[in-house]
Amino acid sequence: MVESEISGTMDTKRLETLVDGIFAIAMTLLVLGLAAPQISGPLTNAAVTNAILNIIPNLISLIISFVLLAVFWKIHHRIFKQIDRMDGTLLWINVIWLLFIVLVPFSSTLTGDYGQFPVTHVVFNLNMLGIAVLLFLNWEYATRHNFILDTVDKAQIIFTKRINIAFTGLVFLAILLSYYIPSYAEVVYLIIFPLEQVLQRL
Amino acid sequence: MVESEISGTMDTKRLETLVDGIFAIAMTLLVLGLAAPQISGPLTNAAVTNAILNIIPNLISLIISFVLLAVFWKIHHRIFKQIDRMDGTLLWINVIWLLFIVLVPFSSTLTGDYGQFPVTHVVFNLNMLGIAVLLFLNWEYATRHNFILDTVDKAQIIFTKRINIAFTGLVFLAILLSYYIPSYAEVVYLIIFPLEQVLQRL
Amino acid sequence: MVESEISGTMDTKRLETLVDGIFAIAMTLLVLGLAAPQISGPLTNAAVTNAILNIIPNLISLIISFVLLAVFWKIHHRIFKQIDRMDGTLLWINVIWLLFIVLVPFSSTLTGDYGQFPVTHVVFNLNMLGIAVLLFLNWEYATRHNFILDTVDKAQIIFTKRINIAFTGLVFLAILLSYYIPSYAEVVYLIIFPLEQVLQRL
Amino acid sequence: MVESEISGTMDTKRLETLVDGIFAIAMTLLVLGLAAPQISGPLTNAAVTNAILNIIPNLISLIISFVLLAVFWKIHHRIFKQIDRMDGTLLWINVIWLLFIVLVPFSSTLTGDYGQFPVTHVVFNLNMLGIAVLLFLNWEYATRHNFILDTVDKAQIIFTKRINIAFTGLVFLAILLSYYIPSYAEVVYLIIFPLEQVLQRL
Repeated sequence: MVESEISGTMDTKRLETLVDGIFAIAMTLLVLGLAAPQISGPLTNAAVTNAILNIIPNLISLIISFVLLAVFWKIHHRIFKQIDRMDGTLLWINVIWLLFIVLVPFSSTLTGDYGQFPVTHVVFNLNMLGIAVLLFLNWEYATRHNFILDTVDKAQIIFTKRINIAFTGLVFLAILLSYYIPSYAEVVYLIIFPLEQVLQRL
Repeated sequence: MVESEISGTMDTKRLETLVDGIFAIAMTLLVLGLAAPQISGPLTNAAVTNAILNIIPNLISLIISFVLLAVFWKIHHRIFKQIDRMDGTLLWINVIWLLFIVLVPFSSTLTGDYGQFPVTHVVFNLNMLGIAVLLFLNWEYATRHNFILDTVDKAQIIFTKRINIAFTGLVFLAILLSYYIPSYAEVVYLIIFPLEQVLQRL
Repeated sequence: MVESEISGTMDTKRLETLVDGIFAIAMTLLVLGLAAPQISGPLTNAAVTNAILNIIPNLISLIISFVLLAVFWKIHHRIFKQIDRMDGTLLWINVIWLLFIVLVPFSSTLTGDYGQFPVTHVVFNLNMLGIAVLLFLNWEYATRHNFILDTVDKAQIIFTKRINIAFTGLVFLAILLSYYIPSYAEVVYLIIFPLEQVLQRL
Repeated sequence: MVESEISGTMDTKRLETLVDGIFAIAMTLLVLGLAAPQISGPLTNAAVTNAILNIIPNLISLIISFVLLAVFWKIHHRIFKQIDRMDGTLLWINVIWLLFIVLVPFSSTLTGDYGQFPVTHVVFNLNMLGIAVLLFLNWEYATRHNFILDTVDKAQIIFTKRINIAFTGLVFLAILLSYYIPSYAEVVYLIIFPLEQVLQRL
């Protein structure tokens, strides 16, 4: 790499553009999980209404995934407001992270289509686990290799680390719940919102 | 959030990038509602012509949704030309708003495929209602919490508010019309164009 | 509009972002016209090879549409390098133009799937006609309403106008050829490349 | 072109935006190759688990393609950090390159669906060949026509050239391996990572 050859680092701007693009597309592709219903039998307003009601589980999956993607996007932005250069390793941590982001429309559609079966929620939450672990690695690597801006104080660094650990913990909880209450396993992710408030005050 | 920790606000630029991306994709994904026709029976130029003509209702749905999305995009731009920072609440108002934007290709395809049934137009217009209400909340929240730029005068604030209320009113009218003239319910949205001219002169 | 209220014009930057986004997506969605083949009968390397060869007409449609979209993207960029503000009418000319751009993956897939039938090429070329006419209107409106930058000399304005007229002429030729040599009708668009060179030297 | 008329060159910024957009979309569209499984027979957790396991070959194809696209994106960025203007020929080299990028979700899905057959890997690797050759042409053309920034030293120019040649070599190796070990042919691309390190030290 040109930058590597010179200083071992490169700037993060183009990566942020790619991240924004992939998030915008992944969030919009979720809608493909809501396939327009194929109605068999006579076409009536009642039949169409019924077909639409059958899509509700898919709609719930879409809403959960959309909100989670927005949370990840926000966390990533916070991280990259505090980083302005990276090396090849940090770039690849982010590329693998994006790979898990790209899989969300698939695992989301899976829980929408076959949400009554635990395995689909395990797959969805393993997808979340990949995202959480790479977000954690991203921050760990960036802090250990001094990619953090000088303007960022220690309290902020610890706060971001805690958010990442808390989220990873929630994912394990969700994987566990997938076996007992599959259809509601993802509800635990809502805890991230009050948790963020609490962690900020520690 | 870093910004929240410091001042309780964050800048709006990255949100605008996400909004632009999601709009570009949602507007383009509308074309997936025009599935290339599956022709059963002998393949002739007449059969293909006929299959293409059958797509016309889907094309009309696409045109309506495309123009409406362009209107929302324009309104959102106007709003965010007058706002340059936001807090977490305003961010989430916008994320939920984007969720409704992402649903448009689905509800548009629904009216294209089964437009003769009132329920599909009710779904489409409930989708529009979500968009209208969140656009209204966006502006209300921004004005009440002083996120508006000082350069924006009072007349402009009131104009934007009136546009939002007018649009919400049109949505209710469209929902009502969905029961009586389903296939033409969305025509009422055309009123937004002369209405905007009138409101500007008040 | 805020800007309209003040000066009757608005800047073109966000429109250019939307245009770039929609082009990137429309150009990439063309690939959906190359559905992975569904093979019936025994799965062998020969059967799969045959299924892939059957996709060649779709690949040709994709290439033609991709190159044409790149041409339109380039023309639009040239136009908006010479314009830096616009009014509501110019905005809507561009929105309707984008509507025709969004339709390209559909009409392209149509010629790929049923290219032996003239009607599909007529549809494709009518799509091109919409694009050509709106590009022409775009430039006409911009020049007549003085939206062109002062740094643009008269020769350039006339050159752009001639390109637009030439392209519209080629579209009419393609529509005509759709009836006689459907599968080769779009070849006439290749003339745009030498034609551009010629017009530049006039 | 306006710019051509004046100086024979144009700036590369808008092209970079288009490239970033197309990469973000192509990388995300890969997920469509993981169609939510259609389960025939009784719906049980075991049946759904089995259906998900059947997707693993598609997932492997997705991962390979995603990582390769990230590699191409990175190479393209390095190239365009060293170029700041281009002419029409260089633009079209890039457009044709993007055409091959757009085809990746198709050829990737093909190896995912029918990976046991050599022909699918040949198609995938021919797609890679197109990408590699155009990346090579891009750099050759840029260096020969003096589009490289003065700040780029000779060692860097040679390094980029070697990477391009090395990658083209790997593609030929992959095409060859497609006939003998189809399912593992793409593994050779992993060599690009250590190879890059070696070439950098030459």
